[in-house]
Amino acid sequence: MTIDRQTLRWNGWGLVTQENPYPDGAAQWIFIREALGMKELPSTPAKRFTDISLPKSRLDEQAISRLKEICGNNQVRDDDYERAFHARGKSYHDLLYVRAGKLEVAPDAVVYPRSPEEVEQVMAFCLKHNVALVPFGGGSSVVGGVTAESGSLERAVITLDMTLMNRVLKIDKKSMTATVQAGIYGPQLEKALQEHGVTLGHYPQSFQFSTLGGWIAARGAGQQSNRYGKAEKWLVAAKLVTPKGVWQTEDYPASAAGPNMNQIVAGSEGTLGVICEATVKIHEVPKAKDYRGYLFKDFKSGARAARAINHADVPVAMVRLSDAPETYFFQAAGSSGGGGLKAKLQAAYLRMKGLDAPCLMLVGLEGDKETVAYARQRTAAIAQKHGATAIGASAGRKWFHGRFDGPHIRDPLMDRGIGVDTLETSTHWANILPLHEKVSAAITKAMAENVPETGQRGIVMGHISHSYPDGASLYFTYIFPRKLEDEAGQWLAIKRAASDAILEGGGTISHHHGVGIDHAPWLAEEKGAQGMAALAALKKEFDPEGVLNPGKLLG
Amino acid sequence: MTIDRQTLRWNGWGLVTQENPYPDGAAQWIFIREALGMKELPSTPAKRFTDISLPKSRLDEQAISRLKEICGNNQVRDDDYERAFHARGKSYHDLLYVRAGKLEVAPDAVVYPRSPEEVEQVMAFCLKHNVALVPFGGGSSVVGGVTAESGSLERAVITLDMTLMNRVLKIDKKSMTATVQAGIYGPQLEKALQEHGVTLGHYPQSFQFSTLGGWIAARGAGQQSNRYGKAEKWLVAAKLVTPKGVWQTEDYPASAAGPNMNQIVAGSEGTLGVICEATVKIHEVPKAKDYRGYLFKDFKSGARAARAINHADVPVAMVRLSDAPETYFFQAAGSSGGGGLKAKLQAAYLRMKGLDAPCLMLVGLEGDKETVAYARQRTAAIAQKHGATAIGASAGRKWFHGRFDGPHIRDPLMDRGIGVDTLETSTHWANILPLHEKVSAAITKAMAENVPETGQRGIVMGHISHSYPDGASLYFTYIFPRKLEDEAGQWLAIKRAASDAILEGGGTISHHHGVGIDHAPWLAEEKGAQGMAALAALKKEFDPEGVLNPGKLLG
Repeated sequence: MTIDRQTLRWNGWGLVTQENPYPDGAAQWIFIREALGMKELPSTPAKRFTDISLPKSRLDEQAISRLKEICGNNQVRDDDYERAFHARGKSYHDLLYVRAGKLEVAPDAVVYPRSPEEVEQVMAFCLKHNVALVPFGGGSSVVGGVTAESGSLERAVITLDMTLMNRVLKIDKKSMTATVQAGIYGPQLEKALQEHGVTLGHYPQSFQFSTLGGWIAARGAGQQSNRYGKAEKWLVAAKLVTPKGVWQTEDYPASAAGPNMNQIVAGSEGTLGVICEATVKIHEVPKAKDYRGYLFKDFKSGARAARAINHADVPVAMVRLSDAPETYFFQAAGSSGGGGLKAKLQAAYLRMKGLDAPCLMLVGLEGDKETVAYARQRTAAIAQKHGATAIGASAGRKWFHGRFDGPHIRDPLMDRGIGVDTLETSTHWANILPLHEKVSAAITKAMAENVPETGQRGIVMGHISHSYPDGASLYFTYIFPRKLEDEAGQWLAIKRAASDAILEGGGTISHHHGVGIDHAPWLAEEKGAQGMAALAALKKEFDPEGVLNPGKLLG
Repeated sequence: MTIDRQTLRWNGWGLVTQENPYPDGAAQWIFIREALGMKELPSTPAKRFTDISLPKSRLDEQAISRLKEICGNNQVRDDDYERAFHARGKSYHDLLYVRAGKLEVAPDAVVYPRSPEEVEQVMAFCLKHNVALVPFGGGSSVVGGVTAESGSLERAVITLDMTLMNRVLKIDKKSMTATVQAGIYGPQLEKALQEHGVTLGHYPQSFQFSTLGGWIAARGAGQQSNRYGKAEKWLVAAKLVTPKGVWQTEDYPASAAGPNMNQIVAGSEGTLGVICEATVKIHEVPKAKDYRGYLFKDFKSGARAARAINHADVPVAMVRLSDAPETYFFQAAGSSGGGGLKAKLQAAYLRMKGLDAPCLMLVGLEGDKETVAYARQRTAAIAQKHGATAIGASAGRKWFHGRFDGPHIRDPLMDRGIGVDTLETSTHWANILPLHEKVSAAITKAMAENVPETGQRGIVMGHISHSYPDGASLYFTYIFPRKLEDEAGQWLAIKRAASDAILEGGGTISHHHGVGIDHAPWLAEEKGAQGMAALAALKKEFDPEGVLNPGKLLG
């Protein structure tokens, strides 16, 4: 395994050795407790692994033997730790189960194939014996995309951990493409590429613990997607193993030879085949980077500036606009607790500038020196035109330094009776402000209706993080006091309210997290009857037995 | 009809009143005759319409009555002119048939629906009575995409002329999208958009005589696709009428909610449904334009410069690099015949600069003034770094002025025993030069093997006209003396040689013309068994009876 599973938190985010960003006694706890209207923060630790037992594996010795014949002894695992590690992804909802030791849903074995040929053989085994097969990369899905669902009570589940298939097969510096095995983790991929002076530039918040195949399967987006594109944009070609054979998609910079089949692969979430290799667009490692902040008087003027930057063809890597609650919360939570002298002075300065509830925009630029210099001048001019106050590069540096840190806060929050979840959507510019308002309101209302005690409340904050000429994404983070007696019900009530508001408000059910199990109930409304029929026809063609990733995408 | 069919050449390109660019006695005829090694140019006029008869319509009076009930009397036509006009597209291959009056393949009626609801009803009629339905926009396909094939001898064919569905339904200047009925012609669309200060920017060579729906169905590319994108890039959402009902695709700037179904619509070539409306990305009408020329000492150094421009993120609208034969031929054919003093002086100047066989690159820039100024400085610097001689804006102006004129030359050539055809592909940068050489050689060889007389020869010339970070298109034009006794055989021999060379050489069978009937035999090699199975599954889902555009795309 490229990252030893024993070094990773099976029931949380990141490394076992990860330092707690909010240790007991940290000033942030006071701020958070007060913000949520909680009198105290209960101690709600996760169940210890040694106190948990898993259901007996449904695969008998003969099956395990056969799998070991295919992939080698060390690559077939049915011990409790491996099964628990691969039971679910990393959503708040997943953690509710695994932290409580509820592992009724867990794979009966975990298999680590080393080649497409081994994937083919494992798949043949599954087809022959009616075993469900769940492809698994980093397992960082936050929508139930890797849950070890069998789709049928009698059926066993094998999780196919792809992370041994992690080689860079080819780098073509003329065409600026690389062909890579899909199980490679972000850091390993970038290390291998950057040794050759090139980069994929795909840095989602999960970068350290997610894989190439997962990014493609779920149509992920890196934080610098304005420059490097979402997965479906940088995907050039793919090799999948499907129940009907190996599928090598067309491999061209552009074509008019019928529909682009790569666009069926992107977003297929392991339901049509297992992505084994991908050819992706790469770039020279940027010679220059510039990340800096602008403060807008409100979300509206910031959104207008983001739109104007997109419409002016300025080559930006990232335009990230936080709404007022997020701007405030991160400033407060990131500092010594929000009550310090520095924060007070800052607040006074902002009020003086007419910025009672300012919204922070971070603009990230990457590329050669000329591109970055040009883009910096143009973005600064556009921001200024929309009334922004430039606050320089320190805000950009701070964000860049901590850009993968967000998820590390969740474990300590969950240890203290606090829930935190995120969700995202996208819509056209004309609808950005109404949708932002509608979804914020729906989450706020649902949290208020589902707090454990009167006087408690949740906090919702949002940002635009990916933008296009025709619209942008909206990302929401919400934090709330957990209703310990009905945690899953509370989560679902909020999730349902948010998802209904998104669809009613004209947004997509997901901009870059994917569908998985959690968003499947809303997919039909988005795709329509004909779109769903098309997806079902493809599923039936490739996987008529339904062994591949049951319950995901199509429900 | 938005363009009265009587004003258009039913058996050639453009308006009936189109001036002949090469009248008898023009100096170009000498140059062309000599270049092709022809002793004389035979007179090979098209058959007169009055001397042609069509097979009897397979639709009886009752059928025509029912169609008139649906679409109104004036919108159902079964006269010879309408049937002949809609028999085929505008490829050289098509013209061989229609110019000879071979109209065995022609629709039994032409219906002009005025709304998606009328399309639904016509489709219901076709399903009920087992009649083939061929969607038709401008009818400018050059791959057999609108040939009135029935798919079965007993079956009648209705061609659905979409050009009455030509309204702009919505312009959203915040989101920079427009929703438009699919039957709108290029000029009408741009006029309607530009009245509001916006543009789609999609200007294929067929612009004047092709429609929005056709561009999407065939994944077309405008000449400025570097800036505005191919159809699949600017398509945001679509409304199709399919045999299984109306399909409104998802409408978001980006999403991770499963595969993007719009990418199944783009390239579907009327085989899954009839595209009735589309939402497309628009842009501000560019405030500045700059088109200028650079001469490179060879194709290789020009291609390197084109690649470098793409890799440096320079916001260009067009990078068009002609190979040496095309640079020479268009210079010669466009001037007084290539023998004048001016041309001789130019040749001497070029030799002095070491440019024996120079290659012309035209760089087109569009956008706001700052974007164009920046891009001009950067492209000039990159061209210079690759050894180019800047030849200023006059070459750019000349090209821009005549950018839709190429196809008008074909009719007079065909009147004089000369054939001319074009085809295109794309490949990754690392393969551009080998593929250019391989395809040029294959066409040259096939032409040589298929000339009517010893001593005669064909000419092939190529260019890169659409480029991407990972590769570019290659477009070939070839001119040859026609083998009058076996014109279709000669065409097919050359076409087959070129197509085989493209596939063997790692190119796509089409970059922007589409598949139609002509490219269908090569599609399976490109898509692979799994890709073809996926397309077949979609076809079966939407059109199990196979009434929609038989023989296209899937063969």
